Parts: sequence; C-alpha cells; structure tokens
Amino acid sequence: MIYFDNSATTKPYKEVLESFWKVSEDFFGNPSSLHGIGGKTERLLSQARAQIAGLLGVDAEEITFTSGGTESNNLAIKGTAFGYKNRGRHLITTAVEHASVRESMHQLEKHGFSVTFVPVDKEGRVNPEDIRKSITDETILVSVMHVNNEVGTIQPIMEIGEIVRAYPKVLFHVDGVQGAGKLPLDLKKAGVDMYSFSAHKFHGLKGSGGLYVKKGIKLEPVLSGGSQESGRRGGTENPAGAVAMAKALRISLDKRADKYPVLLEIRKSLVEGLGNMAGIIVNTPNGGAAPHIINFSVPGIKSETFVHALEEQGIYLSTTSACSSKKKSASSTLIAMNVPDDVAGSAVRISLSYENTLGEAIEVLKEIEKTVSRLGRVLN
Amino acid sequence: MIYFDNSATTKPYKEVLESFWKVSEDFFGNPSSLHGIGGKTERLLSQARAQIAGLLGVDAEEITFTSGGTESNNLAIKGTAFGYKNRGRHLITTAVEHASVRESMHQLEKHGFSVTFVPVDKEGRVNPEDIRKSITDETILVSVMHVNNEVGTIQPIMEIGEIVRAYPKVLFHVDGVQGAGKLPLDLKKAGVDMYSFSAHKFHGLKGSGGLYVKKGIKLEPVLSGGSQESGRRGGTENPAGAVAMAKALRISLDKRADKYPVLLEIRKSLVEGLGNMAGIIVNTPNGGAAPHIINFSVPGIKSETFVHALEEQGIYLSTTSACSSKKKSASSTLIAMNVPDDVAGSAVRISLSYENTLGEAIEVLKEIEKTVSRLGRVLN
Repeated sequence: MIYFDNSATTKPYKEVLESFWKVSEDFFGNPSSLHGIGGKTERLLSQARAQIAGLLGVDAEEITFTSGGTESNNLAIKGTAFGYKNRGRHLITTAVEHASVRESMHQLEKHGFSVTFVPVDKEGRVNPEDIRKSITDETILVSVMHVNNEVGTIQPIMEIGEIVRAYPKVLFHVDGVQGAGKLPLDLKKAGVDMYSFSAHKFHGLKGSGGLYVKKGIKLEPVLSGGSQESGRRGGTENPAGAVAMAKALRISLDKRADKYPVLLEIRKSLVEGLGNMAGIIVNTPNGGAAPHIINFSVPGIKSETFVHALEEQGIYLSTTSACSSKKKSASSTLIAMNVPDDVAGSAVRISLSYENTLGEAIEVLKEIEKTVSRLGRVLN
Repeated sequence: MIYFDNSATTKPYKEVLESFWKVSEDFFGNPSSLHGIGGKTERLLSQARAQIAGLLGVDAEEITFTSGGTESNNLAIKGTAFGYKNRGRHLITTAVEHASVRESMHQLEKHGFSVTFVPVDKEGRVNPEDIRKSITDETILVSVMHVNNEVGTIQPIMEIGEIVRAYPKVLFHVDGVQGAGKLPLDLKKAGVDMYSFSAHKFHGLKGSGGLYVKKGIKLEPVLSGGSQESGRRGGTENPAGAVAMAKALRISLDKRADKYPVLLEIRKSLVEGLGNMAGIIVNTPNGGAAPHIINFSVPGIKSETFVHALEEQGIYLSTTSACSSKKKSASSTLIAMNVPDDVAGSAVRISLSYENTLGEAIEVLKEIEKTVSRLGRVLN
C-alpha cells in the first residue's frame, strides 16, 4: 500500500498515541478543577501550550486550543466579525480558500457583513495588490491561506502582511492547516494576527487543533461557555489531545530538517515524471508551491475513475479536498484558476508526508502511466 | 485517594482508551475520502453513530458528533436561533443552566434575540407552568437541563415536553450532559427535539460529544465548513473519539443495571450522614434528585478552604462546576435557589460514578466530620 493522501489526513505517530494514552489515563482530571488532580492536568496543558507556542515562535498565552482546523478558521473569522463589527462589516478573502473559510464568510454575509473574494491567477495565486485594492474603511479582516490544499500553491503571505500592516483597523488571518509542520512561516515578521492549524495534518490526532491569536485581539467566542482558553472558547479542555498535538508538531519539525530535501526530490521526480507522460497535465505550479502537494489531470478520465483505478493497485490518492470529495463537484481552486472543464473534472491530488519515499513515487509513476494507457484504451 | 468529582470529569475506562488507540492506528483514514482507507473509517464512524443512537432510542441519522457538551449546547441553541429566526426571536431557558447554555443565550441577546430565564424553586426545580406562561408567538426554543450539575436536581422534562408539544413552532432542547448514562430519559416520549451529551462525563474521552437532533430540524451550523455530519457541523470527523464514546456509553449503561442500586445506597448514606452532622446543610433536595450529585454547605467555612482541607486527606471534591470554579464566584444554581450568602459561599459538591463504593463514602463522611470540627475550632 502506498498512501499519498496526506493532505486529507496523516497516520498518527506512535509516540503521539502513547502521549495521548498516558495523559488520558494518568492525568484525567479536569484542568479547571481547583484540586491537585485538576492542577496536574492543567500544568500539562500549559506545557503543551508553551511547547506549541515555542515551535511557532509566539507566546503561550497566544495559543487557543480548538477541536481542529475548521473550528480554528470559524473562530478567527466569525470571532473577528462579531468582535469587531463596530469597526466595520467588510471582510476580504480569496477565491481558493478551504470550505471552512468560504462557508464562514457566506454565513457572515447572511448576518449583514459583506465579503470580497479576491480572484487568483492561473497558478492559483492571489496578487497582493488585489488585496490592497479591496481594503475599504469598513474592512476588519483579511483571511488568506498559506498553502492551497488542492494544488499546493503558496500564497504571498509576507507581502500581504506588509500591506495589511498599513491598516491598523484590519486584522490578518492565515489558514495554516496545510502549511504547519512543513513550510516555515515567521508569524511575527509576516504581521499575522491569527494562524490556524490542525493536528491530524501533521501526524497528530483528529479532534485537536489550535489558533494563534496575537495578544490584545478580542474575539467573540464561537463556542460560548466557561472561561477556558482565556474566555475565547468554552468547554472542558482536551489535555491529552493538546499534549499529543505538541508532540506531533515537534516530531514533524524535527523530521523537517532531514526529510525536507527528500520531499523536494520526490516532488521533483513526480512533477517531471507526470510532465513527461502523454495525456497528463500538471496543475500545480512549478515555482512557489509546497513540496507535498501535486495536482494533475488526465483529461478524458474522470477524477473518481482514476482514483479508484489506482486504488486497485494499492495506491491511495484523492480527487479534491476530502471535505468536498463527496459532493463530487470539481475542485473550486481549479475553477478559480480558470482551467478548462475537462481538466477540472479529471483532477487528481497527490499529497505527501515525511514518511513517503522516492521508491514509492517511482512505483506510483509507473502505475499512473499504466492506468492512463489502460483507461485511455477503454475510453477511446 | 478517593475521587468524588465525577461531574467535573471521569477517568476513562481502559476499554475506551483501547478502542481509541485501535481506531487511530488501524483506521486513520479521513472518513470523507473516496478511497477504501477512508471508507473503512467511515463505516466505523457509522457503526458508532448507530450504536449511540440505539442506546438513546433514536435513529442513527439523528446523532451529530461534536467536540463535547459545550459545542452540543451551542449548536442546539444558536443553530436553532439562526436557523429559525424567521419564525421568531424569543428563547426560554432556566436560571440554573450550565455556562454553555447561559452564555449562548447571552450572546444571542446581543444578536437581537430575547431570552426568558425562568426561575426555580428552593430545590432548584423549574415549574413547568412557568415555562408555559413564558411561551409567546415569538418563541422558537425551550432549553432545560435534565440534571443540574451543581446540586443534582432533576428537572421535570416529561411535563415540559408535554407543554412544548402543544406549540409546534417551538423546539425543545435538553442539556443531558449530567444525565446521560445515569438517568434514563425516553427522548421520543418526552418530546425532546435535541439532547446534548458529553463522553468524558461517562468515562469516555474529553473532546467528544454529541447532539441528538430530531429528523427534520434544520440547524444553522456553528462550525461552518464541509458537509460532514449531514451539513450540521464542518470539520474532519473524529472516528476514534466517536467509537470510544460509543463504547463508554455502552459500558456505562451496562453497569447501570448492577450499580444503580449501589449508587442509591451511597447517596443515602452520604445524605443521612451529612444531614446528621452539626454545622452542615445539605443543599441537594431529598426527592427528585440524581443519585450521583450531593451538594452541601458548611456555613462559616469557605468552599475552597474546605475542598483543599479534604484534598490533604486524599479526598477530591469540588466547589461548584469545574467550568466556573476558577472564577471563584458562588454557585449560580444556589443563588437561583435563593439560599443565604453564607450557604452559597461555603457549598461543596460530591459527584459519584459507578466506580465509587460505599466504603469510600463512609471514609469521606468521617473525614468531613473531622475537617468541620478542626476548621471550626480554628475559625471560632
């Protein structure tokens, strides 16, 4: 089996599961309890918070634990909208965001906010100048993803941060779900006010995520309740999930040192191999893309057909983002990139982790070539 | 060590942790992925959903997985408010709800909704007639908890359900977080439209909960994103958490058969023992209260002081709900019950699980008596 669908989810590291078990069993107290059993758990939670903050280069009090990337994005966007609605009611995002950003924005439109969806170029990249031109006196938030989940395009976060910085009333949120643990991003230098991440994208556990919220920002909670997470998110904390996430992020960043060059090599071999195959179009741009996502199309063969054919060979890829795959609609990113319908309708995504090897890539290339030829013969 | 703070959180059962581990390791796929690795995980998630539905006597499609009780309550209340705002903008709840209900209501007030907080009697119980009198043409939701988390009072859910049933435009939500796994409640018979539960209150894991939503009800999502959970909640599902929760609920209900009488016996011994002690007032009503929560006061000794003194003897109790304990404000339920200030300010909560024994209760009574006498001497 070759698992090349790591942007949908990754297999948790054994050490991550071990941490989860240990905390759940030995430190089961409620961190909000006044007594020592709660206190011990609270200290573990604080350590996890400090560790994640350290790895992201921010302060511990700036980390809010959530149930995952979707909650983090919802909290950043709706929390800003409702928290700062007296400043203005206009938000800016791009045409290629994850469903959790897009749908949060659409929900806010129903609540009287207006949203500008800035278009992207044919590589799926937003032009920072288009962001600048969209800012009005009413703007309170700019939300742009770091790495596109469907084609891997890296957005110009530093440049956008530079622009937003000139408007002190506007906050800058970055959906870092596909970048965290893989692509470095200096949050302070880039002027990022909020940054979302999700543990299960970097070999942590589903159900755990986080949001960096720069000191001084007052978000309206999405989950109201107790005063946990500095009042930003009610609900009993999940210390085992938090400790496991801290461990997953640390291991991922440790591996990055060694494995990043390998990932680049795998990517190169895949992009070149696919580029040389007749009947295949590589949708991921050559430059300015993340090392772990490669999107290609086989015009004439539907995405689902191709994914299932490769699965028969023990190779696991995906059509579009997992969150949208069951809708069977074409990739919203490719549509925004303005590719022809037959390219959008036949798109396939490879997504890698540090656990994948060059040998696997070569094997996958071989099977893709055979599958294109076999399915092409059937169809023609 | 004697752990008598089970309404704050419980220790997860070993089998629950084992299920979590097995699913996380062997079925790590994203349930929304089209391929077989996702499909296998999706089937496990569906089985967990069906199992929980079966245990609650409802249909699988009526169970929405969430990150816990707070999210479930937020989804029920805000989801109804925003989903049905065209029907009306009035909600009814009680003066003794959990912070996640109370704060969701307060947040909605800022969004133009009006909320009636129905008072309770001196036992902490709401009068169903007061609910009836509060219903107007604008009312869209009645939200009442099953078991009060601070004093254990059981609310008259059947009677309230009967009343609400007469108003087809009004939905009925029950916060079942403290009742699930302990007190039977026939959701269909009681006319309950939504019912919240949280795994870590019945020896499951933190970070997992659920909401029963009766077929046909259209909630506006609180966490917008992908179309997971029938469009009610975006975000990658947590199959390991769901399977672990199903197991925890099944084990708890299995234990109930044997252990419920034991719980009643422990409760009786505690209530009688405390009632016979000089200087102690039992706040939990004698009748119509859950078997696992006993609240008492030691006027003259602050709650925190008493809890810490017992902790020195290896006994873990709590002051008020864990979610509110760090605010150091007195129990909102006791205030609503109109007890004198020195009673509210000295309240202590014992909360039991099926794992506790009569021997522990006798030991705890002995230590409480010694502590009252010791602290009383110091103070007088």
